[in-house]
Amino acid sequence: MKPTITTQPLVNGDRLNQNIARLATIGALPNGGVKRIAYSHEDLQARNLVQQWMREIEMEVRIDAAGNIIGKYPGKHAAAPALATGSHIDTVPCGGHYDGAYGVLAGLEAVQVLKEHQLQLNRSVEVIVFTDEEGSMIGSKAISGRVINDPGYYRRPDGTDIYSCLKAIGGNWDSLATARRSSQDIAAFVELHVEQGPILESMNKQIGVVEGIVGQRRFNITVKGSANHAGTTPMSMRHDALVAAARVILAVNKIGNTPGQQVATVGKMQVLPNAANVVPGWVEMSLDIRDLSSLHIDSLLEQLRTYLEEIAVATNTQIRLNPCLHNEPALAEPQIQSAIARCCKKLNLSYTYLPSRASHDAQEMAQVTDMGMIFVPSEMGVSHDASEYTSPEQCVRGANVLLQTLIELDSELSK
Amino acid sequence: MKPTITTQPLVNGDRLNQNIARLATIGALPNGGVKRIAYSHEDLQARNLVQQWMREIEMEVRIDAAGNIIGKYPGKHAAAPALATGSHIDTVPCGGHYDGAYGVLAGLEAVQVLKEHQLQLNRSVEVIVFTDEEGSMIGSKAISGRVINDPGYYRRPDGTDIYSCLKAIGGNWDSLATARRSSQDIAAFVELHVEQGPILESMNKQIGVVEGIVGQRRFNITVKGSANHAGTTPMSMRHDALVAAARVILAVNKIGNTPGQQVATVGKMQVLPNAANVVPGWVEMSLDIRDLSSLHIDSLLEQLRTYLEEIAVATNTQIRLNPCLHNEPALAEPQIQSAIARCCKKLNLSYTYLPSRASHDAQEMAQVTDMGMIFVPSEMGVSHDASEYTSPEQCVRGANVLLQTLIELDSELSK
Repeated sequence: MKPTITTQPLVNGDRLNQNIARLATIGALPNGGVKRIAYSHEDLQARNLVQQWMREIEMEVRIDAAGNIIGKYPGKHAAAPALATGSHIDTVPCGGHYDGAYGVLAGLEAVQVLKEHQLQLNRSVEVIVFTDEEGSMIGSKAISGRVINDPGYYRRPDGTDIYSCLKAIGGNWDSLATARRSSQDIAAFVELHVEQGPILESMNKQIGVVEGIVGQRRFNITVKGSANHAGTTPMSMRHDALVAAARVILAVNKIGNTPGQQVATVGKMQVLPNAANVVPGWVEMSLDIRDLSSLHIDSLLEQLRTYLEEIAVATNTQIRLNPCLHNEPALAEPQIQSAIARCCKKLNLSYTYLPSRASHDAQEMAQVTDMGMIFVPSEMGVSHDASEYTSPEQCVRGANVLLQTLIELDSELSK
Repeated sequence: MKPTITTQPLVNGDRLNQNIARLATIGALPNGGVKRIAYSHEDLQARNLVQQWMREIEMEVRIDAAGNIIGKYPGKHAAAPALATGSHIDTVPCGGHYDGAYGVLAGLEAVQVLKEHQLQLNRSVEVIVFTDEEGSMIGSKAISGRVINDPGYYRRPDGTDIYSCLKAIGGNWDSLATARRSSQDIAAFVELHVEQGPILESMNKQIGVVEGIVGQRRFNITVKGSANHAGTTPMSMRHDALVAAARVILAVNKIGNTPGQQVATVGKMQVLPNAANVVPGWVEMSLDIRDLSSLHIDSLLEQLRTYLEEIAVATNTQIRLNPCLHNEPALAEPQIQSAIARCCKKLNLSYTYLPSRASHDAQEMAQVTDMGMIFVPSEMGVSHDASEYTSPEQCVRGANVLLQTLIELDSELSK
């Protein structure tokens, strides 16, 4: 049975896609990509344009101490905790048109449509442009109160200090604490983003209802064997660190491929002495493991430790697993997931539930308030590249889901 | 039954070990090692000392166009092809006291003992000090006629050209062809050397009768996958070049561990892009495989190629095996092996047959004439290091086997 066609307002697709294209001209690269590093000249230009657009649709614009741009469309009940959406407009050194920018511009489009339909919600709607998502995530971390209290940590790769960076965008390191928010003033946060992975496309789904942002643990694995002459050392007398490392890589791949949605990767590797005629004596490599469930990661790591012990014995090597990063999963609020799914049905869009395996400002916002995320497909799963692409039709579909979800949540929260 | 004690002459062990220690003072390093790079000031000093010692025992000394020092103890039949022994006195940048030097000094000691016993053999005995064994092996290659006809190829790492190098040690690039020898003037060549591996020590044998110097093939293996986000790319959709490479390493290890005396090693590896959060898209690694039988290497490579094809299919990657070095094995003459073994028995020394898996000047001499090699144990199998060690007792045992083998071959060849 075909669902009833909604009588709800819909976004202006042409306007949305034109705005995406317009923003992508700032920092445009010859290869079609975009370079808009946080705090750069291009970032500042883009921030100015977004603020101008916010003002054009009569939003109240402010910049907090972390440089986050917060545009507000006031609701009927000014004192009630707001509904927030948003994303970021900074990019990686050679990024595409959609990552971050899409979520911000869809948020503005949603507000503009509400205004055009003279639809004032009960709650205010905030569109937040978070500072430096592709780097330190200092914008959303300031809002969640998780900025590290060490300005040196936030020094830019080019050596610029964080004081001058924040000052340049209207922020202020010394009053960063004032940027902190809570569920007292934000009732829910919904981020719309491109998937940056191939799942929606491969499942032929139009919308992804994000279950949460996976937890991530990173380790440095070291394998100590004995470097020896590759000619004169018989096979039976070797302590070959690279043979052991190869078995470790396959063990990591094995736990990655057990039932579940986890991913496990060895991406980085160094071999010593790294000469064709020397049996390797030392290998160092990275392990990155991600899943929505921290308990599941624990149990996979437990299994891996057993494998590593077996490999060390079998190869006469010493293997160490040293933690170097530990991010807990950030789960999306089930009620928000349901609201998104209901909106997809109303809009007659196909959808699936899936985890986000990349980081987003939403993971910080989950510390502050109820969080949800909407994904649209990324062609071939490509992201952080000039060739990143989501079709105009898909951009419109995602923006409509965002708009409807904000309306839905407003109505639900008022019950 | 205990073998009859030989009445044959024996070397003067104290003198031999004193000479080894004396030579090791030239280029001595603070850590106990020796640095005597070919053509260096230290190499020249050592060459002068060895020539002085040759003259002191009344050998006829000449330097050929490749800078090889050739000391001759004339035999009864001056026109008959000579018996030759020798090795090298240059070292790696941080070498030990024994590699090369031991074989040269044991050769001189053998001649001195023959003279002291007024034992003139039928054939002349030559002791050859080969030029630059640790580098280009130009000395023995000039004797075998296998020098590459391109002076640029022999340029030193420090930029010095081969003309001036050879000139400094009394050689001459332009007349290199005159250094060539044949079985018409060398009837047999026997090199005494430290094993540089752990086999004799682990088998508790005093002498190694070398079966030949292994052939060596070297390849560059490339694995092409697809670099992708380590978070957003599901396990099932990866083309992980490092997972494929791990399976290649284990396949190489597997063929190395099949029955036989081969060794097979992946010693060098590079991963791209080599970042913890990116699925590796490209891996390049070395393969080094060595065995006494070229046919056996062929069949192992055939097996490996089958494995590589299976791995490429299973991992959705492309794997290429590109040859970059091909050295044929150099077999020791069975008659010389038997002569060495008989001498061990006469001297009541334990011995075993084994291949040499490192390169030696003897492999070039095998192109010229019948070749044999005698090994003595290397403590812990260590070589090319300051800690390289062979006990004085073992040095004496090996030198006695060399002396006896020269006498034995002289007598055999006169039959």
